[in-house]
Amino acid sequence: MQRVWSDGLAEQVGRPVRVAGWFHHLRRLSRVSFLLVRDGRGLIQVVVDEPALADRLAALERESVIEVIGHAVAEPQAPGGVEIRAPQINVIVATAVQPPVVMSGPTLRASLPTILDHAPITLRHPSRRVAFAAAAALARGFRQALDARGFVEIQTPKLVAANAEGGANVFRVDYMGREAYLAQSPQLYKQIMVGVFERVYEVGPIFRAEPHDTPRHLNECISLDAEMGFISDHREVVGLLRDVVAEMIDAAGRAGIPAVDVPSELPFIDFREALRIAGAADDEPDLAPAHELAIGAWAAREHGSDFVLVEGYPTHKRAFYTHPDPAAPERSLGFDLIFRGWEVCSGAQRLHRVEDYLAVMRERGMDPAAFEGYLEAFRHGMPPHGGFAIGLERFTTRLLGKNNLREATLFPRDLNRLAP
Amino acid sequence: MQRVWSDGLAEQVGRPVRVAGWFHHLRRLSRVSFLLVRDGRGLIQVVVDEPALADRLAALERESVIEVIGHAVAEPQAPGGVEIRAPQINVIVATAVQPPVVMSGPTLRASLPTILDHAPITLRHPSRRVAFAAAAALARGFRQALDARGFVEIQTPKLVAANAEGGANVFRVDYMGREAYLAQSPQLYKQIMVGVFERVYEVGPIFRAEPHDTPRHLNECISLDAEMGFISDHREVVGLLRDVVAEMIDAAGRAGIPAVDVPSELPFIDFREALRIAGAADDEPDLAPAHELAIGAWAAREHGSDFVLVEGYPTHKRAFYTHPDPAAPERSLGFDLIFRGWEVCSGAQRLHRVEDYLAVMRERGMDPAAFEGYLEAFRHGMPPHGGFAIGLERFTTRLLGKNNLREATLFPRDLNRLAP
Repeated sequence: MQRVWSDGLAEQVGRPVRVAGWFHHLRRLSRVSFLLVRDGRGLIQVVVDEPALADRLAALERESVIEVIGHAVAEPQAPGGVEIRAPQINVIVATAVQPPVVMSGPTLRASLPTILDHAPITLRHPSRRVAFAAAAALARGFRQALDARGFVEIQTPKLVAANAEGGANVFRVDYMGREAYLAQSPQLYKQIMVGVFERVYEVGPIFRAEPHDTPRHLNECISLDAEMGFISDHREVVGLLRDVVAEMIDAAGRAGIPAVDVPSELPFIDFREALRIAGAADDEPDLAPAHELAIGAWAAREHGSDFVLVEGYPTHKRAFYTHPDPAAPERSLGFDLIFRGWEVCSGAQRLHRVEDYLAVMRERGMDPAAFEGYLEAFRHGMPPHGGFAIGLERFTTRLLGKNNLREATLFPRDLNRLAP
Repeated sequence: MQRVWSDGLAEQVGRPVRVAGWFHHLRRLSRVSFLLVRDGRGLIQVVVDEPALADRLAALERESVIEVIGHAVAEPQAPGGVEIRAPQINVIVATAVQPPVVMSGPTLRASLPTILDHAPITLRHPSRRVAFAAAAALARGFRQALDARGFVEIQTPKLVAANAEGGANVFRVDYMGREAYLAQSPQLYKQIMVGVFERVYEVGPIFRAEPHDTPRHLNECISLDAEMGFISDHREVVGLLRDVVAEMIDAAGRAGIPAVDVPSELPFIDFREALRIAGAADDEPDLAPAHELAIGAWAAREHGSDFVLVEGYPTHKRAFYTHPDPAAPERSLGFDLIFRGWEVCSGAQRLHRVEDYLAVMRERGMDPAAFEGYLEAFRHGMPPHGGFAIGLERFTTRLLGKNNLREATLFPRDLNRLAP
């Protein structure tokens, strides 16, 4: 008999079925027991009438792998509206020890560190699993939106020779006797690839050796990067970002995640205005997390929007490749997208003339020789271009209304955590 | 006027058009000149009648970024069957120096090292670009095939605490004062995730510190990983692999890559038979590249197939997590897929009982404490499972009939190459 998953059981009502999964829970009542089997997609209720079978199950450890053959019957109280009756149960793998955390409740009653320490088991809990089904849907939506617009997926190296973005926050690697670094972003490569395909995207890990321990930072994350050439201005990039975000949220919606409205035009404010709204000093160089929360609250209040774009950041505080506003060069054409009070995306129009790169490198004391491959692309013709990078874990965290990136990261890497 | 790409020009015949791209080539004849503009998707022919304009173009460096406004006219001799006449040409970015390699021929006339040294420019050449459009299509086909079968995409860490697969070929990272490693594969994590979603896949980089310098090895590659639970045997995994490969090739076909027939059942041979076919000594522990080529030739000759599966590799030579054949434990349930004489994929049914892991670790002198998170998954119930990993660059290389992985890698990383 073909195995049926929990999400296909409703179509089998009235028929014999075979299901398989993990022994999630057993509730013994005086006359009947209810077994919950968890498979990769949901829960299945099995009615156990036979006292001998209930005794056998009571002696079995939770998380044992089992198979149930029985009869599918409609039952509005059961998960998915179906339960299995008259079961025959085969134990595929009997486990010998209790799970480290009780798995049967609607949520896990354990601290986040305990949940993360035992991720191989706690990720199985339905309340944890949903974040990663959402992340998978968001990544799919990102790719579909860009595929439909003629973008080409690229895979760029994570081992790099130059500490391209500057700063000390870079991981060093012993590269067969030479020093290499882990890429902090695919930025330079995706720009080079605009010279090849004009429109490119990448989904991949980025690495930052920041010794932070905050709910918003991890040392390894997934970046959803896009970059496009022949733009007329940075607003064209913002327009693309808006549409990509809307399609990501649609894709998550098809995976069962509650929808969020994405305004057809993202509300935007100037950086100085953002500082004012956040009650920050007007010489602050960037927005702190508390400022982002204040701006998110303002956007919800003033625009009924979960999203708000901040633009016009000071040029000298943005990455060297950011294009200044030609009308006011101290103001950059860079922007950040704030989603429910967290910055989830950073983008910009970039410099595209080699002489502008050489000038900014001179100004910032950077050595052009360390960027030779990158500069070669600009020396041989690059169109006006721009792009953005969305932090997948940040986006997922806020979409699910969570407050810690670790809730949306399978195996987080931080100051204290390198395993499991 | 809306910009038109090269691949949309045929629909604009008879109309005024605006195109943009790079100055690819200028052919001056006595009465007329032909300008070739290269955009992100193809080439566009522009007819230049005006001597003054031809002179202006002759003085412009190749790879300058230009825009052409003119009239689209059908012309069977032109790329895509269309050319632009009566052009007005605007230079967006004039470059100051010649490209490092002549870009105008049908192929690049330069050595592979030169081509790779100047990748930011040489990747723009149509003959190079095709490999990466193919790779993007193959990755898309991989994901679509697995999405359709209920697999969930996962993102697992590349920074890991344990040298999980053993061996010296692992990159060491200074992780904020601790020692970490770059993951050689997502193997252990994808198995853990079978306990969560049953069916998972990942597309991501893998890192191997092998000081090789061969056409078939690189130190950073993209691995297309899949893993599924509740299998009846390893042939079920092979069946999935066959279907996934067929859908990958279909996706590449839709991107213009010539089709390759994937037999509805992959021909397979036992490892000992493979050694015999390859003329290798029957105590060889693995297949060498020359053996793989011989087996590929045999499959083409005997089965008319570009693919052949080798199975029954010796258990003690496969990774520790490989399931032995219960009927003959010295023989493993691991397999390799050979595509046109190159191994492009490795897979297996895996061990799923914690006691089997502890036994094999004892036998191989491995420390179970280094695998605590991994073992926790098995301690708490894992179903029979298996999976495979396809090397994206290897698959692309052979699909395109190339002989060096570097032909299908944007910015290869090897013993000598860490930039660009």
